[in-house]
Amino acid sequence: MFVAPLIERKRDGSPLTAEEWSALVAAFTADRVPDYQMAALLMAVVFRGLERAELAALTDAMVASGQRLDFGAWSVPRVGKHSTGGVGDKVSLVLAPLVAACGVAVPLIAGRGLAHTGGTVDKLDSIPGFRTALSLAEIQQQVQRIGCALVSQTAEVAPADRRLYALRDVTGTVAALPLIAASIMSKKLAEGLNALVLDVTYGAGAFLPAQDRALDLARTMIALGEDRGCPTTALLTAMDRPLGRACGNALETEEAILALRGEGPADLMEVTYALGVEMLLAAGVEKTTSKAKKKLENTLASGLAAEKFEQIIEAQGGNPRVVDDPAVMPQAQCVEVYAARRTGIVTHIEPRAIGRAIVAMGGGRARVEDVVDPSVGFVISVKPGSRVLAGEPIASVYAKDASGATLGCEALARAVVIDDRMKEEPLPLVSHRVTHAGVEQLSPVPRRPARPAGRR
Amino acid sequence: MFVAPLIERKRDGSPLTAEEWSALVAAFTADRVPDYQMAALLMAVVFRGLERAELAALTDAMVASGQRLDFGAWSVPRVGKHSTGGVGDKVSLVLAPLVAACGVAVPLIAGRGLAHTGGTVDKLDSIPGFRTALSLAEIQQQVQRIGCALVSQTAEVAPADRRLYALRDVTGTVAALPLIAASIMSKKLAEGLNALVLDVTYGAGAFLPAQDRALDLARTMIALGEDRGCPTTALLTAMDRPLGRACGNALETEEAILALRGEGPADLMEVTYALGVEMLLAAGVEKTTSKAKKKLENTLASGLAAEKFEQIIEAQGGNPRVVDDPAVMPQAQCVEVYAARRTGIVTHIEPRAIGRAIVAMGGGRARVEDVVDPSVGFVISVKPGSRVLAGEPIASVYAKDASGATLGCEALARAVVIDDRMKEEPLPLVSHRVTHAGVEQLSPVPRRPARPAGRR
Repeated sequence: MFVAPLIERKRDGSPLTAEEWSALVAAFTADRVPDYQMAALLMAVVFRGLERAELAALTDAMVASGQRLDFGAWSVPRVGKHSTGGVGDKVSLVLAPLVAACGVAVPLIAGRGLAHTGGTVDKLDSIPGFRTALSLAEIQQQVQRIGCALVSQTAEVAPADRRLYALRDVTGTVAALPLIAASIMSKKLAEGLNALVLDVTYGAGAFLPAQDRALDLARTMIALGEDRGCPTTALLTAMDRPLGRACGNALETEEAILALRGEGPADLMEVTYALGVEMLLAAGVEKTTSKAKKKLENTLASGLAAEKFEQIIEAQGGNPRVVDDPAVMPQAQCVEVYAARRTGIVTHIEPRAIGRAIVAMGGGRARVEDVVDPSVGFVISVKPGSRVLAGEPIASVYAKDASGATLGCEALARAVVIDDRMKEEPLPLVSHRVTHAGVEQLSPVPRRPARPAGRR
Repeated sequence: MFVAPLIERKRDGSPLTAEEWSALVAAFTADRVPDYQMAALLMAVVFRGLERAELAALTDAMVASGQRLDFGAWSVPRVGKHSTGGVGDKVSLVLAPLVAACGVAVPLIAGRGLAHTGGTVDKLDSIPGFRTALSLAEIQQQVQRIGCALVSQTAEVAPADRRLYALRDVTGTVAALPLIAASIMSKKLAEGLNALVLDVTYGAGAFLPAQDRALDLARTMIALGEDRGCPTTALLTAMDRPLGRACGNALETEEAILALRGEGPADLMEVTYALGVEMLLAAGVEKTTSKAKKKLENTLASGLAAEKFEQIIEAQGGNPRVVDDPAVMPQAQCVEVYAARRTGIVTHIEPRAIGRAIVAMGGGRARVEDVVDPSVGFVISVKPGSRVLAGEPIASVYAKDASGATLGCEALARAVVIDDRMKEEPLPLVSHRVTHAGVEQLSPVPRRPARPAGRR
């Protein structure tokens, strides 16, 4: 196919047709369009964007490059979940079993860690024996049997997305809103869903730090989902500090297990319930927010959610004892306590510094081929607003050796800011609800100077 | 080298350093930067442009990727010439021998035809035996012996430019002003010049049809030349209709020979003299425009310019008899006369339609590997403003067969517009003179609606 004229048209600001996008993606996936032409086109898209019809066609073509889950006449409602991620974000590990235990099927194709943000699949890998690379047939069987599967993107699902993402990663074309939306939605639309709930994070630790960009992304994905017959809702959530106390794969999995046993930190539970309410409402199993919230709380309190997680782990070859004894997961060799350097108030906990430190300590990937040490990370017991005394222990560093622990303490010294008084309020945890009908502001967002975005 | 962060910086509007550009071009030429990263970076440059220091560094790196002519202490002034090209533009074939016959050395590395525009090298290829692929050593010897060499870009000269151009050609990144400037200047700065004169064409048949873009390109190339110690001047010339009467490789070479014998069409001579004056002034062999013009006219009238062309042809292995008998060049098998379809005034001769017809008739390249038939083309004896009678012969079509002739006549029917009166004046042939000091308007340019640009 003649690709150069298409690149020129996009460069000059004219849209390509749906047929052109389909043909392009099909030819690219079949190795009939060279990477250099696709890279130039993607960069033109960074500058020119995509019209709604183009984005739909691109996403459809990415979905069509692979297979999709098909639950046929199965009557149990299926609701998907996706988060744009952040530091300490272990919501999926709590939410998926919890919602499944409420009678809503959750087939969840999750991602690996990217840059400073962790990935659900890496967290699950902390559980000895847990297998995330299930075939579509296995996923379908498991979801129909126990209501949930927590899996990674295999070659069967949107292979065009995998190839495009690998190319975007090395050509400076990751940070393009329509490309992000198409990449996410091509996987979600392959999940055979009746509805989808999105957690779009913003703030310094999010992939898109600016609130308006996060809102734009939410709107774009909602339009895409609705156009494809998948009702989609999004919540905007705060990622200006880590979520919960634990950051690092095994530590976060442990915190998720604690949450499923009713001992989760307040911020993690607030986000989990907010998203869970949306999922139950979208599934139609509850009609009001308060009833949905009650159902989630009761299901958690009853132990059914923790039991569901055990079932999932067992079904996917993992050691289900982890739910009772998280210590079956790899343990860090070197644990060091970090103390407050002065008396005052914690004004800020910079999430990127934490996320990057985990990568530097071996708990994340600098390159795709890196092997992750699941045991490393942080448990930070303070939050912005906490009052601390000089010398008071406020965090623990989990490292594989003393030099890793030093790295971790240095990162905490940079990330945890203690001052005499708060200079700006942290973002409200759940600030906006976005549907195809519009944006509903749930909590007032404090005015603040724009933080330097620091693209990855 | 880590290229992705550089692409991201350029994408976000920050300049790269000179060192980064040098390292990038060197690594790309050595196959250590993949095409897909360079393609993404080039597309980012299309949108973000290049700062003056970046452009200089890129161009320097392209020059440094190859070798350059070095005339050492040789005292004869050397002045280069480049045209951004058009349809019927055979100026170099007349100008280089003419200026060389005036005592100024002209080492001319020329290009091949691109899209609808012809190339000097293709025109020279019409001369039986003529060899354009000279080594730098051969070029240097020949220039020092007879004052001129008309050659093609070999692997010795700016190989980075050749690789970049090939990539730009298939990734929609040709039409970026700084990249065009860097490509042209990387070859010119390898010619070992004391000064450079540029012919920047504009109008519907030019590479950059808009006057302001042509002016920008002129300014950019002048800054680049001056920064590199090569005083550079540009003339803006009209390419809203073909230049001269002949269009097509052998036909244009024949017209150039006629011009060297004193029988050139007025428009061709006007452009040739205007550029020649600049070259003699830049070389310092004449001090005033009128003296320079006189010298050119006298040299042409004396036969010395035609003799110089003969010497060049002989030195490069061509048949020098062509200067007396152009019929030694390939002759078209099928010649058809085209008559005016109505009585009226020729209001417009669309150059792109003519250029594209030559390609379609086999006289140009649709792809790099195409073999060019030098004999095909047109001789158009009217100009915008000419009054014609229905049935009056106004052009000849030179084709390899009857179907080619039909193609040619159809193109003329589209290209040559005859109406009751002129609707807009043609552009003045030589409208602006641009130096590092500024822009001097030589002739008033008529106001006219923007013509659809029709990028290649």
